[in-house]
Amino acid sequence: MAHDGRESVPLAEYLFSRLRQLGVGAIHGVPGDYNLELLDYVEPAGLLWVGNANELNAAYATDGYARIKGIGALITTYGVGELSAINAIAGAFAERAPVVHIVGTPRRDAQDGRKMIHHTLGDGDYSHFSRMYEHVTVAQVNLLDPRTAPKQIDAVLEQCLLQSRPVYIQVPVDTVGVPVLADGLKSEIQLHRFLPTPAHDAAVAEVMDRIYGAKHPVILVDGETRPLGLMQDVQKLIETTRWPTFTTTFGTGLVDMSSPNILGIYEGAFADPETKALIDGADLVLFFGPHESSTNSYSWTALPSPAVTISFTFGGIKTGSTFHRDVSPSSLLSRVLTQLDTTKLLEIDTSTAQISRNTSLSFSQVSSSAPIKQDKVWRLLSKFLREGDILLGETGTAGYGVREMVLPRYTRLFAPVTWLSIGYMLPAAQGAALAQRELIASSQYHGLKAGRTILLIGDGSFQMTVQELSTIIAHDLPVIILLINNDGYTIERCIHGLRQKYNDIPKWRYLNAPAFFGAAEGNGFTGAARTYGELEKVLGEEGLNNGNLTGLKMVEVFMDREDAPIGPLTDILEKQMARSK
Amino acid sequence: MAHDGRESVPLAEYLFSRLRQLGVGAIHGVPGDYNLELLDYVEPAGLLWVGNANELNAAYATDGYARIKGIGALITTYGVGELSAINAIAGAFAERAPVVHIVGTPRRDAQDGRKMIHHTLGDGDYSHFSRMYEHVTVAQVNLLDPRTAPKQIDAVLEQCLLQSRPVYIQVPVDTVGVPVLADGLKSEIQLHRFLPTPAHDAAVAEVMDRIYGAKHPVILVDGETRPLGLMQDVQKLIETTRWPTFTTTFGTGLVDMSSPNILGIYEGAFADPETKALIDGADLVLFFGPHESSTNSYSWTALPSPAVTISFTFGGIKTGSTFHRDVSPSSLLSRVLTQLDTTKLLEIDTSTAQISRNTSLSFSQVSSSAPIKQDKVWRLLSKFLREGDILLGETGTAGYGVREMVLPRYTRLFAPVTWLSIGYMLPAAQGAALAQRELIASSQYHGLKAGRTILLIGDGSFQMTVQELSTIIAHDLPVIILLINNDGYTIERCIHGLRQKYNDIPKWRYLNAPAFFGAAEGNGFTGAARTYGELEKVLGEEGLNNGNLTGLKMVEVFMDREDAPIGPLTDILEKQMARSK
Repeated sequence: MAHDGRESVPLAEYLFSRLRQLGVGAIHGVPGDYNLELLDYVEPAGLLWVGNANELNAAYATDGYARIKGIGALITTYGVGELSAINAIAGAFAERAPVVHIVGTPRRDAQDGRKMIHHTLGDGDYSHFSRMYEHVTVAQVNLLDPRTAPKQIDAVLEQCLLQSRPVYIQVPVDTVGVPVLADGLKSEIQLHRFLPTPAHDAAVAEVMDRIYGAKHPVILVDGETRPLGLMQDVQKLIETTRWPTFTTTFGTGLVDMSSPNILGIYEGAFADPETKALIDGADLVLFFGPHESSTNSYSWTALPSPAVTISFTFGGIKTGSTFHRDVSPSSLLSRVLTQLDTTKLLEIDTSTAQISRNTSLSFSQVSSSAPIKQDKVWRLLSKFLREGDILLGETGTAGYGVREMVLPRYTRLFAPVTWLSIGYMLPAAQGAALAQRELIASSQYHGLKAGRTILLIGDGSFQMTVQELSTIIAHDLPVIILLINNDGYTIERCIHGLRQKYNDIPKWRYLNAPAFFGAAEGNGFTGAARTYGELEKVLGEEGLNNGNLTGLKMVEVFMDREDAPIGPLTDILEKQMARSK
Repeated sequence: MAHDGRESVPLAEYLFSRLRQLGVGAIHGVPGDYNLELLDYVEPAGLLWVGNANELNAAYATDGYARIKGIGALITTYGVGELSAINAIAGAFAERAPVVHIVGTPRRDAQDGRKMIHHTLGDGDYSHFSRMYEHVTVAQVNLLDPRTAPKQIDAVLEQCLLQSRPVYIQVPVDTVGVPVLADGLKSEIQLHRFLPTPAHDAAVAEVMDRIYGAKHPVILVDGETRPLGLMQDVQKLIETTRWPTFTTTFGTGLVDMSSPNILGIYEGAFADPETKALIDGADLVLFFGPHESSTNSYSWTALPSPAVTISFTFGGIKTGSTFHRDVSPSSLLSRVLTQLDTTKLLEIDTSTAQISRNTSLSFSQVSSSAPIKQDKVWRLLSKFLREGDILLGETGTAGYGVREMVLPRYTRLFAPVTWLSIGYMLPAAQGAALAQRELIASSQYHGLKAGRTILLIGDGSFQMTVQELSTIIAHDLPVIILLINNDGYTIERCIHGLRQKYNDIPKWRYLNAPAFFGAAEGNGFTGAARTYGELEKVLGEEGLNNGNLTGLKMVEVFMDREDAPIGPLTDILEKQMARSK
């Protein structure tokens, strides 16, 4: 109770209650001496404490969790902890993962006194690290004053959700337990994604006109469809219009890839001629959540012509060269769906389109004694996927290979987009698997009762963050890892230094990993494959596919060091190979 | 050849030649697409490429290497690589390790064009990461212009050496091979540590007077003695004066700890009364390389009274309240040693001082069936040490325990000082061991023909950066790891959350590590001990002590989770235990 009769709670309880209200079920992080008091409040708030092996991994995991759950939270300690995590937070910023990064900081009197305590640079300046974080977070707050803390917390969380980017909260160790007013907790944070503006009606009218007038319309779904909160409505639009639809890599899996009119990833310069003609001939491209990085747009060759494009972006709606600022993409799309008179729409039969879609391949179509090659393996692996899987293709050959796979309904895809920090995907798989489990437990996972998280990763990336296998094991998460052992950094070999030693890595005994990291005897599964026959056998093993999905399962898949999926990687690899002949 | 007949070399060759001249023998780092061209020049320059498992580890290793070798160099890639390393660079800044951090960056036209390429934040601003680095490096340069690059390189390297702190060099991928003038390479970089000033003679005179007038003199050796380049002269002073000498934790091992008048670490509030009386009664404290962080100074209780102290610091010489700016500590000390008339010095027989020095303990003094406890184990381990060992005690119980050990001649110690980033010591051991091997190979290691690097580390820290075992194995470095398995973050338990789950960690099968990380069959050594008898046995094993020192050797030492070395940790642990009863 505050003295005027209003209710109060400890500051940390306020913060964690807010996170809980927003859908956070677990907090990732690592204990450190400036955050221990904070950690006392995590489990009492009904949150699971994950406890990762290090802070970079914890932040990667939080990012993976946030992309599935819509928000994630991370706790590190001042200086050493937060700086270890900053690369992952930069990635979350670049690719719009809504991560709340909470840092336990030294007591306020130490800060005020500019004391030369540990975890500082020794110059009395306690603001170095928060100033670094200004570059990679959209809002920052230092909870020095309990009187203002609740509103400050709410304000940064709102930014996190609206912009779907990381925010940064410093909690001095001596404010953790200080009472703050609890009033705010009675109602959830209200997000104002929809603020009607004078421009809104005009924009809706223009979009409707363009839709009704389209003779060659295309829908293009990119990755910011997720942070914009458009996934469901875009799916509805795809189903309603039945118009030809493509995704970018980043957009893949945000809509149901088994929808009959979703024709695959648009690969720009690498697309087949029919697809290219279809996009180039479009008089309307509805472009949702554009994210125009080189990797995601095949070096900008996969971007539609601005003249025919209506883009749904964080800044507003772009129609040709007009930018309707402050028009909410979600409210506009929702209005469009409500008003849409389908009888006025152009009917297009995409089933007859001459577009080469992704197709899976059967083991009967390959020689069982042949070594596993990148030109076929991804299509073969397609058949291993199930509805509701989360599929992660780490930067490297896997990140390109997954683009060839046929994704069942409700599968989500993580693939290289912009940040491309190798090592990201393994901890991200941990976070994503945990988010998936929470959604299943609360019956929010498409009605599915089980789900798997499947990580395709090269050996070089695997070595970066390998210890997070231990977190997967400790929390008994249903993660399947297909480890591509191709003897080093093959993606770098494609770019430069084909046979240079610096692209080699030490050879590990990879399948020893589950035992080393503490898997219970008889739990989990390991297997290996060098040929298609061996791969077929191991993918069919009971231990990999049984009903009890929990526990780490690992298959080591050997491939050649100078082999890459068809597409951009093979193009540059062939140049390297020609040069080194 | 430049067009005017002056010789030229590719920019990268200039940079690496300079590093080679300065004593760098190996470069740590991780390949990435913006640094591959740069890596082409590493081995041709006569430098070993280490190739770590990730960038944080690479930077930690470079720091360890630099503290032994006097300079170290690291190569990462733009964005993802450099940000992964920034926590380690902050530690090198805080504790003055001279690390040259070279970052391969995107082509200049991509930067000028503000392209949204991968490894950027997508906002066209390429300066985010260099601005972060301004906080933790003493000089930064972006080699955009080959005409000025050689002088720019020289200028930042000079700062690195003079301040013994990290510097930051960006190399756009398209300047790597551009010719630059080679003239500079003909002569080595001249460091002007000694610049005579008018104040210099006055300061020398004052110091000499104080030395001759001292009735109760004490020498105190702190850790910045190393970066100040004073190690040899301070040792000379200790031997010449035979005055009572103490070290701080940071200063331990920078001078010969077996010198008869070195009485141990001065622990301030935790010192025995005789030591405390000796320091408090001093009328002169010659304080070399002060580093006044809380951890290193036992919360500032181990700092001598300024009134009687002459401090040799980076800023100059402090005598009482007078600060002689721009007086070089090394030149001043060298002048003092030259002028010193030892007959005028007070003679002190330290052998009769009632100071309880560190003593080793024999296994015959403990019960062989008793479990291993923190109150005795460190003194027992003392006998395992040899001349020339590098000993690392990771932050945690080990970092306190090593302070109790008796260090033979030419041993160097790494212990918690200021940054205290757990996970640091394992990669630092890799770097230190490599530096040690290079010094031995070039006959610069005290005439010793072999050396070992011994890491004492807790299980929580070990999990943070475990993959660097693979680098130790791949480079066949003589590293011995004593892993303290005490079931979690015991140092955090001491501080807060004694029995909270967040201080637990997953249980690994630690001794599987060498096999997992690729050790050749029959190479290396593993063993375990739960009792003193088992510890005695394993420490005596031929495989741990044999002539061929190369390869990773690991001993798992089990200790209680609520047990800490006597001193500050036990003090706070006992408070936690009393509270949780």
